[in-house]
Formats: sequence, structure tokens, C-alpha cells
Amino acid sequence: MSLSSAWWKRARDILGERIVSDPSLLDPYGHDESAPEEFRNPPEAVVRPIDEGEVSAVLKLCRDERVPVTVRGAGTGLAAGCVPARGGIVLTTELMNRVMDSDPANLTITVQAGVPLRKLYEEVAKMSLYFPPHPGDEGAHVGGAVAANAGGARAVKYGTVRRFVLGLQVVLAGGEILDLGGKYIKSSTGYHLVDLMIGSEGTLGVITRITLSLLPPVGSVQTLLAPFATLESAIGAVPRVLGTGILPCAVEFIEHSVVLLAERLLNKSWPSHEGAASLMLILDGRNDQDTLAQAEVIGTALEQAGALDVLLTDQKGRQADMLEIRSMLYEAIRPGTAEAFDICVPRSEIASHVGFVHRLEETRGVPIPTYGHAADGNVHSHSLRRSLENGVFGGELPGWREQSASIRHALYEDVVRRGGVISGEHGIGLVKKEYLPMNLGPVHMAVMRSIKKALDPEGILNPGKIFDA
Amino acid sequence: MSLSSAWWKRARDILGERIVSDPSLLDPYGHDESAPEEFRNPPEAVVRPIDEGEVSAVLKLCRDERVPVTVRGAGTGLAAGCVPARGGIVLTTELMNRVMDSDPANLTITVQAGVPLRKLYEEVAKMSLYFPPHPGDEGAHVGGAVAANAGGARAVKYGTVRRFVLGLQVVLAGGEILDLGGKYIKSSTGYHLVDLMIGSEGTLGVITRITLSLLPPVGSVQTLLAPFATLESAIGAVPRVLGTGILPCAVEFIEHSVVLLAERLLNKSWPSHEGAASLMLILDGRNDQDTLAQAEVIGTALEQAGALDVLLTDQKGRQADMLEIRSMLYEAIRPGTAEAFDICVPRSEIASHVGFVHRLEETRGVPIPTYGHAADGNVHSHSLRRSLENGVFGGELPGWREQSASIRHALYEDVVRRGGVISGEHGIGLVKKEYLPMNLGPVHMAVMRSIKKALDPEGILNPGKIFDA
Repeated sequence: MSLSSAWWKRARDILGERIVSDPSLLDPYGHDESAPEEFRNPPEAVVRPIDEGEVSAVLKLCRDERVPVTVRGAGTGLAAGCVPARGGIVLTTELMNRVMDSDPANLTITVQAGVPLRKLYEEVAKMSLYFPPHPGDEGAHVGGAVAANAGGARAVKYGTVRRFVLGLQVVLAGGEILDLGGKYIKSSTGYHLVDLMIGSEGTLGVITRITLSLLPPVGSVQTLLAPFATLESAIGAVPRVLGTGILPCAVEFIEHSVVLLAERLLNKSWPSHEGAASLMLILDGRNDQDTLAQAEVIGTALEQAGALDVLLTDQKGRQADMLEIRSMLYEAIRPGTAEAFDICVPRSEIASHVGFVHRLEETRGVPIPTYGHAADGNVHSHSLRRSLENGVFGGELPGWREQSASIRHALYEDVVRRGGVISGEHGIGLVKKEYLPMNLGPVHMAVMRSIKKALDPEGILNPGKIFDA
Repeated sequence: MSLSSAWWKRARDILGERIVSDPSLLDPYGHDESAPEEFRNPPEAVVRPIDEGEVSAVLKLCRDERVPVTVRGAGTGLAAGCVPARGGIVLTTELMNRVMDSDPANLTITVQAGVPLRKLYEEVAKMSLYFPPHPGDEGAHVGGAVAANAGGARAVKYGTVRRFVLGLQVVLAGGEILDLGGKYIKSSTGYHLVDLMIGSEGTLGVITRITLSLLPPVGSVQTLLAPFATLESAIGAVPRVLGTGILPCAVEFIEHSVVLLAERLLNKSWPSHEGAASLMLILDGRNDQDTLAQAEVIGTALEQAGALDVLLTDQKGRQADMLEIRSMLYEAIRPGTAEAFDICVPRSEIASHVGFVHRLEETRGVPIPTYGHAADGNVHSHSLRRSLENGVFGGELPGWREQSASIRHALYEDVVRRGGVISGEHGIGLVKKEYLPMNLGPVHMAVMRSIKKALDPEGILNPGKIFDA
């Protein structure tokens, strides 16, 4: 299929020069940051609207001409959600990057979908307020983070992006502009469509504007590091931490084999290599007195749970190094990665799921380095395509493609058995689509299809993603 | 319309004796706790299933026979949401009152829809955990609280019921049993149908089971009372309280004219009658040291904002009296109420909205006592049908019906102008249905209708509620 001359004429009327059509410039819009290459597919054109009026006009045009429209933020996704799988055009939010309204009285900020998270954090800091969710990549657009319901480490205490979205402006498949929610914080007024749009990965509407709720700033942050002999004992300590009654902001677990990779990449060092794995805990509170008191209670719990050491990294530089190493783990493992997983299980199942992954690693002879969010059950395992020893990647593993598919299947079966989901924060996109029915079951799939059909009867919005409509 | 003999036969096969058909017993199922009487309508029969299997069989039967099904919890609603407006049957959750699973390791509890909030709080206390949302009436069923997205005072810090629902079991119009969510706390796995069901008031499915997330217990609670010369000055103090960076659990505002009514009803006394209104603040934290430090900072802010006094009610009995008076305000005003409102506006608009209500009161010559949740913008005003002086109701006001309708219209227009919603926590039901299109606009209404059509094509689930499908 290719775009008709009628499409081009109307599109130029709407957008003028803001259409990319040079084939050499289209390739970057054909993939995201996910590892598997089989999902790449460049669009026929890229449109760059500046506001919801232009988005509306583009959608009307594409609905009339039956042209698939795939929305793309910064392309930092890991599920190929922004890849134009069925051709058609990519609608990029890159020019929709204005902060529309900063409202300290209501503790809200309203931004266009294309504002990068980095810019959001800066604006919120200027307001002396706090936006807790912190998905890994600060280059991601707010619209993309909402479309995938991004998570990040701080979900233990604060929840995912979903919890902070008060309002959305969405352009529907027929071009209708729909304003959902607002600056109020309680509502029992009609179906809650805001939460239907969050996490729908561009299949139900194009998010053009987001109103986020903000919190008063935290006065103090402390980071604790606790090395353990084994990953299992590290994860096993988490219930004891939560049993103190203190909810840490983040509880991350990391195998030291993975730490080595990131240390090399960044030329920075992790505070301890004792044992096989570390727990990193971030505590926040009203002031240093508060967080230090929390650290004392939690430190004791960690020691009782078998920590080899408990380090309080109160130096800002040291904290920053650790957080950077943590945030670059995906990048560090990526060169050797066949596939990165993003499963989420109930907290009580995380230790046994990781045990299962370790057994897979042994029986299949494929390294599956693992890290993730210990207190919220969100585990990232990477099945590798290259050997890994002492933090250095070796050559390609024979038959890694087949092994990877087989590991994926076994791993997802384990997740479903434990009452979990195949994506905790990255989304389904194309990469996990095949496994969604196994996870959700036929009734859930049927309801999703009926909603898709109700909102996008011609199926022009990001077709082929999440499920086949 | 009346139920066919085929319906009766199959219904008896499913439920045996658990069907109410005696007309004298049906009346209580024809109304809820809302004041207006014009919405009353008894069902033709009441079915009392014990589990999702029976609910499924009943829905299949009613779909086949095109019999409207209206779900009812404890009937404590205030929007006539559980009234069988179009006849047919009421499905009561009163026998679905089992706690299915208490899981301290995952900080969750799973209950059947008919478990009363009172029983939920008891079960959670046994687990040494905390379920923050506290809608007024502890007799309400958990299923009803979820169906209406109930709120309560503690939403300032903790959010409404919505935030705590991790999983739902819902029986769809065709009888399919749909398990949504689970015990995991992060998911980007398909459309988030849990939040679509929450607040849908029984129009999209019958909620049969709920999994709630719980928090570690709070170690200390303090209650502050601050009387102010006027209601406006009390509400005007709220931004200064939030500006301290401390998020109280609750910030309630109450006119003293309303306090008098509740004091009489309960034979208990409010700590101060100085001035025209009070702010009541609930602070919670890890220990007394923490909450007392919060109280000091907030007390200073209240004084600077013009509080006539700041009382720290650290005696448990005194706290309980205040909370009981606060929780019985609706009951106290009810005998004189024409209509109770439940609007929610952005925090910054609450003072001017209440100012508008006071001007309405003066220009219409109708008392409109007002109280509510100051820090989350959720205001309850009652337009009265009887005169009110010194906390005593007098005779009926002439023309109160017409006045009430006209006040409602003006009040809702003011709410929409300020970017608010007509229901913060009670739901739309029948009582506010007429005003929903004015609030949400035609695109939102059309999307809601298309979703209703997709999930309940025959329109058997609570027909006539929220909107006409």
C-alpha cells in the first residue's frame, strides 16, 4: 500500500513542510530501543503536528483514506509499540513539546505529549514540587510514558505513572478531541476513560496533552546498599524490610555479574562486590532525621536477613554513581541480549520466580542475567545471545534464536502460573503480543477487542499492536 | 413488564429459595439513602446469589429473557444507583460476604462484593495492616464502594477506593466471568479494565470479588481542630497548610450551623463553637514524634492563616466524638434536605465555589448548609426543604421543590465553569443523570455509550443509570 496523491495534498494543506518523506530519513522511525530486529519496519511518511488541532485533521484524513497511524514519542520503548507494523504513517510528538500550564495552587502541571521527562522534571523542580515516577530513560516523552503506563523503581511507594495522571487530552480515531479528567482529584462522574487510555499503547486514541498531579517535595533521600551471598537471599530479605512498616521509595535487586558490565560501560564503581547480588534501597522522608531513623530500622532488618554488609551512602556523588549504574543496566546488557523480559509477579512469588530463571539458565546453558524491582515484583531478565564471563561478553551462543524463543515460552508460563503478567512497565506492543492471550484469557481478550472496535471501528490506530483487532 | 414463568422456573433452578418475591418485602429494595423520593421504584423480584457461578447463571437467564438486572449492595448510596429504574430484578450481594483470602506477604485482601466495610476494616486490622479509604457509612458493601468509586476524607493523602483496587472479578452481561488484575502491583499488559469497571455503577458488569492492596499500619494519628471567623477564611487557610509540604490524611471543613444539628442528634459536643466554621485536620505518621512535629508546623500555618484557635485533640475519646459528629453530618441534615450535592472542583476553586453557594443562599432565601473535604475540593452542600435556625429545623419552605431544582442548576453551572465535576464520590446514578452531558460534553458521552454498547449490547445491566444508552 502506498499513500495516495489525495492523501499527500490534504496532508500538505494541514502540515505544510512538517512531513518527512525522504526514504533515507524514515529508517529511524522504523524501530525503538527493543532488541529483536524482526520487528523493524519503516513508515511511508512521518507527520510532525504541533497541536491537537493538527492531530485531529491528520486523523480525519487518515480515517477517510484508511491509512494506519502509529504514534511515536522519543522511541525509547522496549516493545516495538511505536513501530508502524502495518505500514502507513508515523505521527511523532516531537514538536508537541510545550508546557501548557504550571499550577502550584492545584499541585498540577499540564504538558503536551512530546515533552521529554527530563524537561518535565526540570519544570516540576522550578515549582518546588515532586513528580515521583522515574522510568529509566529521561529522554522518553511524557505521552509515551503514559501510553505504556511506564513504571520505574519508585513504584514501590508511589505507584506507576498511572497514579499521577489527572487529565488527558486524546484525539480519537475519527478526529474528535476528547478532554478527560481535569485538575480535580476525586470523581465518580461517568466511566473513568483516563485509565482506559493509559497503557493502551496508541491503539485507542492519540494522547496530545497530559495533566499530572504533583507532590510536595521530599526533604531528604538516603540510599542503602546491602550485598548478599546469593540473589535468592537478597530477594528473601524483602518481606522482612516491608515487615518493618516502612515503605521504601525503591528496593532494587542486582546481580553482580550485571553490575560489572555497567561499571565497565560507565567507568564508575559499585560500592561493594561482596557476594553475588545487592539490594539497593532508596528511602525518602520529610528530613534527614526522618530518613536516618528509617535507615536504622531497615538496616537492622537487612542484617537480620543475612546481608553481608549494610552501607549507607550519604555522599551525594556516591549516590549518583550508584543510580547511574542502576539506570544504565539495560544499555550495558543490550549488546549481548537476545531478549529482555519485563514480567511482574506478586511480591511473594518473586524469589521463586527468580529461582526458576536460575534453573533455566543452568539447564539451557544460556546466561540470563537478572535485576529489577524487588519490592514490587517487576523482574527484568535478559536471555543472552552471547556468552558472558566476568562482566565481558564473548562470542555468539550457538542456536541462541531457538533457545531464546524456548526460554521466553518457559519463563512466561512460570509467570502466568504465579498469577503475574508478562509486562510490568514496558507494554505489549509487538514483542509480547503472541503471549497476551495465554496471560489474559479469552474473555479479557474479547472485551479488549470489543472496546477497540467501539473506539476505532476502521482500525487505523496503531494496528497490529497488543492484539489483532 | 413482568417476569415470565420460564424466568421463574430457571431462576428457581439456579437459586432455590433465595429469591424474594413477596411484594411486601420488595419495597426496601426500591430505594437507597438518597433524599429525593421521585426515584423510588421497587423490583419485581430480588435474587440473592452466593457466588460468581450463580451470578453468571442469573445474568445468562436475564439476558435470554431481556430482564433488567440492577445490582444492590447495602443500599447506602446517595444517587439512586441501585434502584431498579426500568423494573426487572435486583441482584443483591448480601449473601456474598466471605473473605476469600488474607495475604499479608503480598499486602492484599480478597473479599466477595457483599462484605461490609466494617468487616473489611476488622479483617485488615487482624492482619496488622491498613486500608486507608473511609467512605462515610461502614455498612456499605465493598462492591458498592468500588462500583461508585467511593471516596471519603482520607483521599487527600491516600486517594479514593480506586487507588487500592488491584483485582476484580466481574460477571459480564452475557454471564462470562472475567478476572481482572491480581496481586501484582505493576502492569502494562493490555487495557486496564479494572479502572473501567470501578465507578461504572453496575452498568458494565457485576462485581463479584475484589482484591485490595493494603498499607503498613500508621503508628500515630493526631487530630487538629481550628475554628475560623468565617467559612471562607477556613477554606482560605488550606493552601497555606498544603504549602508546608506536609500532606494531611484529611482536611475537613464544617459550618457550625451544621455541627449544631449533629451535636443534637448524637448528644455529643464539638470542641469549639467560636466563629462560623471549623477546619478539622487528621495527621498520620510513623510515631507520635512524627505526627506531633507535623502538628506543630501545621498549627503555626493555621494560626498565620487566621485561625481563632488551634486545638490538638490528643485524647482518644475526644477524637472519636469529633469523627462521629463529622461522619453523621449527612444523617443530621437529612430530615431537612431537599437535595444533597457532591461536587468536586480543583482545590484552587473551592473557596470561590463556596462563596458562590453562600450568595445563592442569600439571593434565594434557602439555607444551603455546607461541609466537605477542603483539601481535595469535594464539597457537600445541602439545599434545604425546611427552615433552619440555631441548629433546629423549622417548617417547610414554600416552593422548595422549584427552588431546589433552580439551585441545583445554578450550582452545577458554577462547578462546570470552574473545571469540576458534579460527583466527587457518590456517583451519577439517576439523581444526577440529567446533568452529566452538561458536565462531560458530547464526545465523552458518545464514547461512554459505545463502550456500554460493546459490553452490554442488550442493555440489561442497570439500564437507565448514568446515561440513556
